[in-house]
Amino acid sequence: MANPPLDFPVTVLLLGSGELGKELTISLKRLGAYVVACDHYENAPAMAVADEFRVFPMTDGEALRAVVAEVQPALIVPEVERLAVDVLAEFESPECRVVPNAAAVALTFDRRAIRKMATEVACVPTSPYRFAESFEELVDAVDEIGFPCFVKPTMSSSGHGQSYVTGRDQLRAAWEEAQTGARAQTNCVIVEGKIDFDYEITLLTVRAMNRAGAVSTYFCSPIGHIQVDGDYRESWQPQRMTKSVLEDAEEIARRITDNLAAAAGHETLTLGLFGVEMFVAGSKVYFSEVSPRPHDTGLVTLATQAQSEFDLHARAILGLPVKTDLVASGASAVIKALKDVENPVYHGVAAALNHADDVLIFGKPHAHRGRRMGVALASGRTVESSRARATAGADCVVIGEGS
Amino acid sequence: MANPPLDFPVTVLLLGSGELGKELTISLKRLGAYVVACDHYENAPAMAVADEFRVFPMTDGEALRAVVAEVQPALIVPEVERLAVDVLAEFESPECRVVPNAAAVALTFDRRAIRKMATEVACVPTSPYRFAESFEELVDAVDEIGFPCFVKPTMSSSGHGQSYVTGRDQLRAAWEEAQTGARAQTNCVIVEGKIDFDYEITLLTVRAMNRAGAVSTYFCSPIGHIQVDGDYRESWQPQRMTKSVLEDAEEIARRITDNLAAAAGHETLTLGLFGVEMFVAGSKVYFSEVSPRPHDTGLVTLATQAQSEFDLHARAILGLPVKTDLVASGASAVIKALKDVENPVYHGVAAALNHADDVLIFGKPHAHRGRRMGVALASGRTVESSRARATAGADCVVIGEGS
Repeated sequence: MANPPLDFPVTVLLLGSGELGKELTISLKRLGAYVVACDHYENAPAMAVADEFRVFPMTDGEALRAVVAEVQPALIVPEVERLAVDVLAEFESPECRVVPNAAAVALTFDRRAIRKMATEVACVPTSPYRFAESFEELVDAVDEIGFPCFVKPTMSSSGHGQSYVTGRDQLRAAWEEAQTGARAQTNCVIVEGKIDFDYEITLLTVRAMNRAGAVSTYFCSPIGHIQVDGDYRESWQPQRMTKSVLEDAEEIARRITDNLAAAAGHETLTLGLFGVEMFVAGSKVYFSEVSPRPHDTGLVTLATQAQSEFDLHARAILGLPVKTDLVASGASAVIKALKDVENPVYHGVAAALNHADDVLIFGKPHAHRGRRMGVALASGRTVESSRARATAGADCVVIGEGS
Repeated sequence: MANPPLDFPVTVLLLGSGELGKELTISLKRLGAYVVACDHYENAPAMAVADEFRVFPMTDGEALRAVVAEVQPALIVPEVERLAVDVLAEFESPECRVVPNAAAVALTFDRRAIRKMATEVACVPTSPYRFAESFEELVDAVDEIGFPCFVKPTMSSSGHGQSYVTGRDQLRAAWEEAQTGARAQTNCVIVEGKIDFDYEITLLTVRAMNRAGAVSTYFCSPIGHIQVDGDYRESWQPQRMTKSVLEDAEEIARRITDNLAAAAGHETLTLGLFGVEMFVAGSKVYFSEVSPRPHDTGLVTLATQAQSEFDLHARAILGLPVKTDLVASGASAVIKALKDVENPVYHGVAAALNHADDVLIFGKPHAHRGRRMGVALASGRTVESSRARATAGADCVVIGEGS
């Protein structure tokens, strides 16, 4: 199954071309890969730095099959959830590897499947949860879980279609929101009890080749973050944790990623970086979600690690060794559009760089209210000062009308 | 004259698309620039990461005029010497800036002009030199300078057309080499006396906007390097220097870059990074050459500085603030092709990364014997260990036949 060592250059088909795909493409291009970036709209961020691009509905299995047949990639690298995940397994062959593997991509796309795997197979703690396939089932599920709770589509990400519910009168709106905001129609929601956590983390977990030619699991320093309505606003690294709690978190991340690897069957190497999201309440760690790819909160690693999460993912999937060491404390703060704009212009970048160390401008062709358009990064001796500087930098940037 | 602050995104026309242009394009893309990469051949490294590319003879003034008229860039950024430098001044306007300025690009392209500026205007020490416009003048010039000496075309770079001459019988071959290896025909050579230096350095010097809205000059830590036949093989940072020698070097770099700025006339802001090459013999510093753009020996800054020379150049030319701090000691070692290969394949990358921290694969479509195809990078506590690791990494990579 297209196992390392690969000869370079390697042809990579990137499915999804957002800001995370842009940075991944840069990491891949530095390693000489030939990257074909795909998305459902033109001028997506990763397309501008890729060798070629294709625009097509990636949820359309037929269209995806045609592009794979034409490009003949050695690696197929999903960057988004919203794909025809059911056809990915067809592409796995001795000449082509799906990253991290086709079964893991399908599993993590579906909150129902991944939750069952986590609790029943990996046996890790999670928040209490129920599934509901109709409004009536939702009412029953919430009766069992209790208020406050979250109602989320089973197939979604980045907070799309998600509601925080504190009373019975909000259930109808939450059900509607889950139907319209989902990334794929399932008519199924998950009701999750709210854990009264002290903080939440992303533990970037990397499966990569070691010097002995086997797969090892490596962990980055934990990333703390603030999410609003399921969408991240700030992240920082390292999140301070006691040794024993960190060990528990690493054990959970290892079990989840081991089981995602096992899902592939033993013929396929499962390589790549995963973003494992967890809640920490006192000394107890709860698994929340996992992305089988770089995680938005991990943008901070561009400021904190010698090898960012994008470098790590690129190296891991190419069969190269990785180093997950933290170099400095740091933080990221998201730059959002406040209104809808075509061909957006960024004001205040120079002012932002008087606070933050770096500002990334994603280069999206359209802005809409709340859309993530850039990120400010800072690093230094403490997380606290880095957070203050990143936030001050992000606040300077205003997305305005283009010409 | 298209002065900062600019609104983002900015359209950049990159003239030259080699490995330095590739990294500059990555830095520019992260800042949201729209980059059109140009060169005289297809599939050049920077073209793969740029938004668009154009293939045309950049020494052809008419062709260059046509591309500028079509693209309408806000910034024209030369990445190579071999350009129709005489037409660049036409493009300077309130809507378009040539980086660092058209006059400086023309001056540095011509070893005769820059040497006269250095000795007669900037008044900095250089090696003894004479110019010769015929073989007979060359013989006379060498009689004055003495052996050993260098014979170089006045318009060239990276050692092209250059000879090291130890006796009279080598002069005919040196004259022929200068004619055939030059990047532009001038029928003029410079004869330079060999300085018996202890080491040579590149001092990366940045003219960028400061917080007060004026242009300041910033220096990176000095880069030591080894060149063979004028072509760099290894570089490291920092080169150890006494404080007073470093101050002399900075003074020379400041005078050279100040005078390149003055060459523009006072209406144009001169912003960007310069690579100032100098020899150090005992306590004495001699100016050698200057590139008005990132320098090949500065690839090491990808491993040693939070803002690489490419980040610094991108920020400076966009009117953004810069930080030139060194983060770690480090080294670079060049990966060269040993034979001519079409569609080259890179073997041994995984093995290389067991020594070096990073390997950059430039992605050139053809290899020829001696062509620079990649670079290995290492950083750590000492320059010595970094050099050993970078060199060991570079030695692992073999450029082979593609399919």
